[in-house]
Amino acid sequence: MDDLLQLGKQALASQPFSVLVGTELTGYSPGWAELTIPITPQLKQQHGFVHGGVISYAADNALTFVGGSVLGPAVVTSEYKINYLKPAVGTVLIARATVVYSSKTQAICRCDVFMVDEGKERLCAVAQGTIARIGRPDEAQT
Amino acid sequence: MDDLLQLGKQALASQPFSVLVGTELTGYSPGWAELTIPITPQLKQQHGFVHGGVISYAADNALTFVGGSVLGPAVVTSEYKINYLKPAVGTVLIARATVVYSSKTQAICRCDVFMVDEGKERLCAVAQGTIARIGRPDEAQT
Amino acid sequence: MDDLLQLGKQALASQPFSVLVGTELTGYSPGWAELTIPITPQLKQQHGFVHGGVISYAADNALTFVGGSVLGPAVVTSEYKINYLKPAVGTVLIARATVVYSSKTQAICRCDVFMVDEGKERLCAVAQGTIARIGRPDEAQT
Amino acid sequence: MDDLLQLGKQALASQPFSVLVGTELTGYSPGWAELTIPITPQLKQQHGFVHGGVISYAADNALTFVGGSVLGPAVVTSEYKINYLKPAVGTVLIARATVVYSSKTQAICRCDVFMVDEGKERLCAVAQGTIARIGRPDEAQT
Repeated sequence: MDDLLQLGKQALASQPFSVLVGTELTGYSPGWAELTIPITPQLKQQHGFVHGGVISYAADNALTFVGGSVLGPAVVTSEYKINYLKPAVGTVLIARATVVYSSKTQAICRCDVFMVDEGKERLCAVAQGTIARIGRPDEAQT
Repeated sequence: MDDLLQLGKQALASQPFSVLVGTELTGYSPGWAELTIPITPQLKQQHGFVHGGVISYAADNALTFVGGSVLGPAVVTSEYKINYLKPAVGTVLIARATVVYSSKTQAICRCDVFMVDEGKERLCAVAQGTIARIGRPDEAQT
Repeated sequence: MDDLLQLGKQALASQPFSVLVGTELTGYSPGWAELTIPITPQLKQQHGFVHGGVISYAADNALTFVGGSVLGPAVVTSEYKINYLKPAVGTVLIARATVVYSSKTQAICRCDVFMVDEGKERLCAVAQGTIARIGRPDEAQT
Repeated sequence: MDDLLQLGKQALASQPFSVLVGTELTGYSPGWAELTIPITPQLKQQHGFVHGGVISYAADNALTFVGGSVLGPAVVTSEYKINYLKPAVGTVLIARATVVYSSKTQAICRCDVFMVDEGKERLCAVAQGTIARIGRPDEAQT
């Protein structure tokens, strides 16, 4: 396992909320991040679908990680927007993020969130946002 | 307790993910919704702040509830954007949402997320999005 | 006329595109900006309504100006989102922006865009975005 | 020239604001739209760059057109967000939009805006938004 992926897994494991959700970092290289979340009953809403908040969390966190892949580990999500495309069902949620543009201080990134249902991936949400490099951890948000 | 608040509390209690997070509906009337989340260790990220994904979840869910207050219970968040203003610390997170505009089929809403620290409220995130009325629960997203 | 409004009017007058559109700065104080655009035939789309691009321009520019009211004149709009509420008709478009939060380097702002029809104001779009202070004019975007 | 491109060119020519800006439809097929805008002095702001409002207009209009390529001509942009990456200079602005997802009533689309400077394309803004099919033209916004 390469160094960046190893560091990323450690960062994710140190986020209590990500541990609570059950998120795994399944891909990480400069300009690319993939988070995978097994869909468990506790991640759902009242109609049996994955709660939108889980999908937002996945997109937000994938955006932060991919921004960190080019800006270094001290980053936060400054802002993002998300469009939900369809209700998420299935066994696994996968958030894949890429860097569209980066300067020394920030990266503009996009994320696609897929649900895996009966072995088939389907896009269920798309996001776009800004990741900022911060000077000190106490400026961190995510 | 009025009927709308009572119905809203039941809806929230039927969302396993909201139960996991520990969210409470503390205000609910037509065009107005308030969610309160006690900040527990499991909601944090690696620097001790509330995870951005929790703040997004709070905003998303408050937007959905406030949309439902004018459109009826069968609603989903179609899309939203959020700006994080500062790291969230303290004891409680409060998301307050209002309806800016609504038609028969959708509502445009805004949400302010506050952290309560040492008894003082401070704004930590702002959001804006679209809530859509749906025909059937299986079109629901959040 | 106070100094800030005077400076703002000069800045607006030095934007050829704002002159082309016919925009006026009708209110400007720290944390507050108001742009007014007389609705002329050339600002419309094929159904007789104000073109969405004009409404976006109005929101974007009002956000930049209000950000500049607290950050100083060297600012750009980094990003924003806009929701269109209804087709804009009438005689005048008014964009009013406020600062939600500001640090030394950026401001998070909101904007409401109104159409004035038969002397009555109606909200037609809402926006939210980030204004950034820049070091040099050649980093400017708007 | 194929029928869709021909229809699109007619629609664009019937938008007075697009004529004012000087926009051309240079590519149009199902799920794909490209708008090209020659950069003239009147499209600039006070520092000599293309005004952000022009870039927003280009993204907004490209999103509307690409949505219309799959939903039919009676469409409006409901909402979108845009991130500006760098100041736009050069001779031509190109906005390219694609459809990420569409249902019978709406399409979620993305747009990349490029500046062409000394014959070289560079990305200067990215956008994402919702295009809605409308029943009657008088519900149209853009």
